[in-house]
Amino acid sequence: MNLITLTTDFGLKDPFAGMMKGVIFSINKDVNIVDISHGIGSQDILEGAFVIGHSYGYFPKNTIHVVVVDPGVGSRRRPVLVTASGHYFIGPDNGVLSVVIAGDPCSRVFEITAEQYFLRSVGATFQGRDVFAPVAAWLAKGGEPHHFGREISDYVWIDIPKPVSANNSLKGEVIHIDKFGNLITNITYTDLENLKKGSAELSSPLVRICGTEMTGIKRYYAEAEGDVTAPIINSFGLLEIYRYMGDAAKALNAGKGEVVEILCM
Amino acid sequence: MNLITLTTDFGLKDPFAGMMKGVIFSINKDVNIVDISHGIGSQDILEGAFVIGHSYGYFPKNTIHVVVVDPGVGSRRRPVLVTASGHYFIGPDNGVLSVVIAGDPCSRVFEITAEQYFLRSVGATFQGRDVFAPVAAWLAKGGEPHHFGREISDYVWIDIPKPVSANNSLKGEVIHIDKFGNLITNITYTDLENLKKGSAELSSPLVRICGTEMTGIKRYYAEAEGDVTAPIINSFGLLEIYRYMGDAAKALNAGKGEVVEILCM
Amino acid sequence: MNLITLTTDFGLKDPFAGMMKGVIFSINKDVNIVDISHGIGSQDILEGAFVIGHSYGYFPKNTIHVVVVDPGVGSRRRPVLVTASGHYFIGPDNGVLSVVIAGDPCSRVFEITAEQYFLRSVGATFQGRDVFAPVAAWLAKGGEPHHFGREISDYVWIDIPKPVSANNSLKGEVIHIDKFGNLITNITYTDLENLKKGSAELSSPLVRICGTEMTGIKRYYAEAEGDVTAPIINSFGLLEIYRYMGDAAKALNAGKGEVVEILCM
Repeated sequence: MNLITLTTDFGLKDPFAGMMKGVIFSINKDVNIVDISHGIGSQDILEGAFVIGHSYGYFPKNTIHVVVVDPGVGSRRRPVLVTASGHYFIGPDNGVLSVVIAGDPCSRVFEITAEQYFLRSVGATFQGRDVFAPVAAWLAKGGEPHHFGREISDYVWIDIPKPVSANNSLKGEVIHIDKFGNLITNITYTDLENLKKGSAELSSPLVRICGTEMTGIKRYYAEAEGDVTAPIINSFGLLEIYRYMGDAAKALNAGKGEVVEILCM
Repeated sequence: MNLITLTTDFGLKDPFAGMMKGVIFSINKDVNIVDISHGIGSQDILEGAFVIGHSYGYFPKNTIHVVVVDPGVGSRRRPVLVTASGHYFIGPDNGVLSVVIAGDPCSRVFEITAEQYFLRSVGATFQGRDVFAPVAAWLAKGGEPHHFGREISDYVWIDIPKPVSANNSLKGEVIHIDKFGNLITNITYTDLENLKKGSAELSSPLVRICGTEMTGIKRYYAEAEGDVTAPIINSFGLLEIYRYMGDAAKALNAGKGEVVEILCM
Repeated sequence: MNLITLTTDFGLKDPFAGMMKGVIFSINKDVNIVDISHGIGSQDILEGAFVIGHSYGYFPKNTIHVVVVDPGVGSRRRPVLVTASGHYFIGPDNGVLSVVIAGDPCSRVFEITAEQYFLRSVGATFQGRDVFAPVAAWLAKGGEPHHFGREISDYVWIDIPKPVSANNSLKGEVIHIDKFGNLITNITYTDLENLKKGSAELSSPLVRICGTEMTGIKRYYAEAEGDVTAPIINSFGLLEIYRYMGDAAKALNAGKGEVVEILCM
């Protein structure tokens, strides 16, 4: 019993995700299909890259992850199949798999060209259904990556913004806002540890966002009571700005791209 | 392992879809359940008919599709079981299965009356849970349609609006707006081909909606760059008005029922 | 094949529910996972208690229900495993399982302390993934409740508001508003039957909410036509105020906690 996951920007109002599952089960009944998210922002390749990059590791090895955030669908942009970290990934060659590829120096990228596996369709606007879903189903049936096309090295790459460090300080940004209004930054636990090591004193770092300054990284949400905003290391291992029982994004009026500064004095 | 799909207007906030799955698994553990959509507009029978009508064909033959958009629940409106195109459909007799029935001249409709399969319940407001789910589970266990009631011919029928053609022109309407703001019309690829055949010249058709005129049916979304609205044949085989990386419904301030005209000059 | 259900306030935008499923399938491939709801209001423990309390009974015995509405995550609040009514429940010890526990005088509560089953993680903000999901997967593999920790009796309890009765009248409140805008109250079918028995005459009860008075409990939604609000016994066996083909919450401008009075004259 193989596992296939879906990560898309299709939402749940339309039948698009359901149709992909129908196609998969038409080819291969012996799979389990899990939705990672269909709530990626429309055409937001960077958000798709972030979500799949931080999620796949919680699935068993050999899981097949289908990722469809695909503004270029039907154009000359290529469909690709990626092997990385013991998992398979199928999606458009537009950078949405960059975090996954970056996570494994031995990752390999194959261009999907084996049209015999595709669904014939009048329109060319839904390769999630016509290309990615059937390729995933056939791969789960015992296909090998090279059955679907040749290996390539000129795949599209997008740079995930990285925090910039200067003496005793770090400048990052908000890269995701979750359902609770938590501001998730691109500053990792390791970044913070390194910053602390480099600083002369063992004092707690100062975190600054939207003119608000905070000290003391919390260990759990309830540690910050009342109407205050506070920093925490979240479940992705990333620095997050939150408000206990509240919505930090609304409280600070902060959005994606908002600058976050850390100072170790 | 049989497949059961769910298409409802229940949304995902309440536990209604989950309860239906619980009822199904209580009767029959050997099924896979797939959500097609729970995002049909509240009581929007026409939208339900459109969504199931364009989705079921991507599932394997013998799939059982449960469709619940049911303002008349608990009244004298009948529950029905339909066989069409090698699939099974279970839902209220209110027209929500009209597209499905229209798609197969050999489709058959059975009134569901075999109460021994129903769940007993104090309230009569949730036949999705008390009637349709258990009937689907028992059908997947090897039941035959006639086990659940007698065949009928006086089922409720709703007409899906069809485009109207005049000399070298076609007048249709927007019947669905998807998550991306794409305006999906009731004009099919075949309608367009027939229109082109009937026209003297091989020029590209002119598409008019909300006072905006467009020429040139695109083959993929990215073909129309910049702030323009353009027509395309979408994954349902229907004419769709879209805006690349944008939202055509918002840009044109267009809703369901908006008139779309095609002229072949 | 065991069944595991998920009820959370995670929403469907983020990959949180998907990650929990990945963790479960990594430990135990022989389970089916069903979403009851991920749409519980953020940190709304009472709503979580209501939803799981009215849903679990529709699942087969021995189903494992994971419930995560957990503002105190990572603090000293304990994770618990509950056995009640032939089902298993896993979640935080914050009262979210109160309705479930109240439903069975023989229910038992175990504190989950067996860290060998937990996922190691840098952050402590996601015990749904790191504690509850793996414990559910191991329990489905044949674990016994006492394998995960000792039985406790000092668990956290929240009182679900109950209707108050006076001579021939009953005062309850709105405890849930569903997707259709139906106002679901805490007055049960049995409460109403008892009230009627105690009243001198067999007249229909008068229902009052937001200054609107209604008589005649409907048996199905379509019984109340036009722009009127009406009472009905819903699929939970609870008194519900609805508007046929409309939204009672909007029409009455009523929210959770709104007082509902019943008078039997």
